[in-house]
Amino acid sequence: MKKLAVGIDIGGTNTVFGFVDEQGNCIAKSSIETAAYDNAVDFADVVSEHIMSIFKTLSDSEIIGIGIGAPNGNYYTGTIEFAPNLKWKGIVPLADLFKKHFDLPVLLTNDANAAAIGEMVYGNAKNMKDFIFITLGTGVGSGIVVNGEMVYGHDGFAGEIGHTITYPEGRLCGCGRKGCLEAYCSAKGIKATYLEILNGKCHPKGTSDEDITPKYIYDQALQGESAAIKTFEYTGEVLGLTLSNSVAYTSPEAIFIFGGISNAGDLIFTPLRKSFENNLLNIYKNKIKILPSGIKENDAAILGAASMIWKQVNN
Amino acid sequence: MKKLAVGIDIGGTNTVFGFVDEQGNCIAKSSIETAAYDNAVDFADVVSEHIMSIFKTLSDSEIIGIGIGAPNGNYYTGTIEFAPNLKWKGIVPLADLFKKHFDLPVLLTNDANAAAIGEMVYGNAKNMKDFIFITLGTGVGSGIVVNGEMVYGHDGFAGEIGHTITYPEGRLCGCGRKGCLEAYCSAKGIKATYLEILNGKCHPKGTSDEDITPKYIYDQALQGESAAIKTFEYTGEVLGLTLSNSVAYTSPEAIFIFGGISNAGDLIFTPLRKSFENNLLNIYKNKIKILPSGIKENDAAILGAASMIWKQVNN
Repeated sequence: MKKLAVGIDIGGTNTVFGFVDEQGNCIAKSSIETAAYDNAVDFADVVSEHIMSIFKTLSDSEIIGIGIGAPNGNYYTGTIEFAPNLKWKGIVPLADLFKKHFDLPVLLTNDANAAAIGEMVYGNAKNMKDFIFITLGTGVGSGIVVNGEMVYGHDGFAGEIGHTITYPEGRLCGCGRKGCLEAYCSAKGIKATYLEILNGKCHPKGTSDEDITPKYIYDQALQGESAAIKTFEYTGEVLGLTLSNSVAYTSPEAIFIFGGISNAGDLIFTPLRKSFENNLLNIYKNKIKILPSGIKENDAAILGAASMIWKQVNN
Repeated sequence: MKKLAVGIDIGGTNTVFGFVDEQGNCIAKSSIETAAYDNAVDFADVVSEHIMSIFKTLSDSEIIGIGIGAPNGNYYTGTIEFAPNLKWKGIVPLADLFKKHFDLPVLLTNDANAAAIGEMVYGNAKNMKDFIFITLGTGVGSGIVVNGEMVYGHDGFAGEIGHTITYPEGRLCGCGRKGCLEAYCSAKGIKATYLEILNGKCHPKGTSDEDITPKYIYDQALQGESAAIKTFEYTGEVLGLTLSNSVAYTSPEAIFIFGGISNAGDLIFTPLRKSFENNLLNIYKNKIKILPSGIKENDAAILGAASMIWKQVNN
């Protein structure tokens, strides 16, 4: 009997889910449109039906549990709390809604924490007890692991490095405060940096604001465009400074960088590592690795969610 | 047979040590001059002799272990590593030096971590699993507790919130970098703030630079002196901003403030709490207490060091 964990990743637009074995292979998956469901009960019903119908096609298998990564997910309560990008308002008892369909452990946490556990179970943090995991995407998420355990904090919401203030009175962040890391290193932040650097010059020929994505800036940088290269330098500088502060909290063995922007390779990692080392307190210098994530991006969200179950089983 | 833990606190100038029972009573203590010992072997010999001679005066007692708080103390290795304020250079295997005299557990960590464990064992954090402990003194130290355990990090040097950079390109810190919390909220930092605010005016009548201590500024503030009051306001503001970032790491139940400056009461706690709440990310607002330490300052260092042993015994 092949043991499988179900991983569910809930995003504002889509929800992806799949079956993951102990080695981190996603052997079957599917998705539905999150935004199509006005209430979470219907959503959980439909996802559960999908899971069961896929499961019926898998021979000689059993489900050992369900892991869910969700925005504003609270590990302790299994609830999603006041998620700004979901239609479901207030506090949604999502783990309980799935438990109605499955007599199995259901674990829920935020997407960045799930991804960090994925790194620990399947990725480059396999033998590490202390690390920090950063996701660079629409927002800047993070998961902190101390002594082999995810840090959830008193209320279940620890690990919001994207909303630490790097520059007091700096750029306005989506959270309403000023100078958060996210205001500089999210997709929107990187675009803002690029437009700032281009200031006074025209947009690149034939592009509108919408065309300017981190991918576009990356392509420009590859072609040697100075503004694009400077954008990655500045992004790395801000991230390096912020992560040098992070080290003073948990003194990790490594910091993993995950998400679209991290695919820019040396363009981002070189200035990032330089700024990080320059800003580190003496006792931490030349000790801490900054590494790309070892999880393949394609199935990363499903793997991260499922890994919570595998981690619990193996503890 | 009364069980007692020995607590040893090593400072740059003096070392204090004493016998502490499970309830946190320091029933006998003494001190020697740290700086009088050019090498740590002689130091450990002399402290051990003192401990034994005091112990002989205590009837019907046994020592269950020795806890040591020391600058740059590494919990994992029991060593003091490159402590700038001690005469002993390089890496000093202090726990081992004491083990030569006592066939007992010897635990060592930095002074702020020891104090944080003291708060957990004897103080106001008794039933808390997630809290942060800040010491305001010559420097700004910190200890972070997650899920009931001290965070030591990969190398044993986690928890240096005093050396997180609050203001990039801000005030020069003793560590050689700019804008660290310590540059604003240590005794020296507070004095610098006071002198900055007084800028252009003369020193307070009859005082020299040496006379200006946090205690002096406190006394001036009590008398209504505007520069002194503003100094505490600014200090609280910087500390509150920094601690709002700390929350995004470990989402603690409470943050404890310990040390001389925290005795200024509302003068520091009012602006501190205001700045803290103002700067917190939405999801953390109105959840986290900022409290004075519950450890009596007099024996705090000895209690903190001894508490490591009691915590281990009770785990």
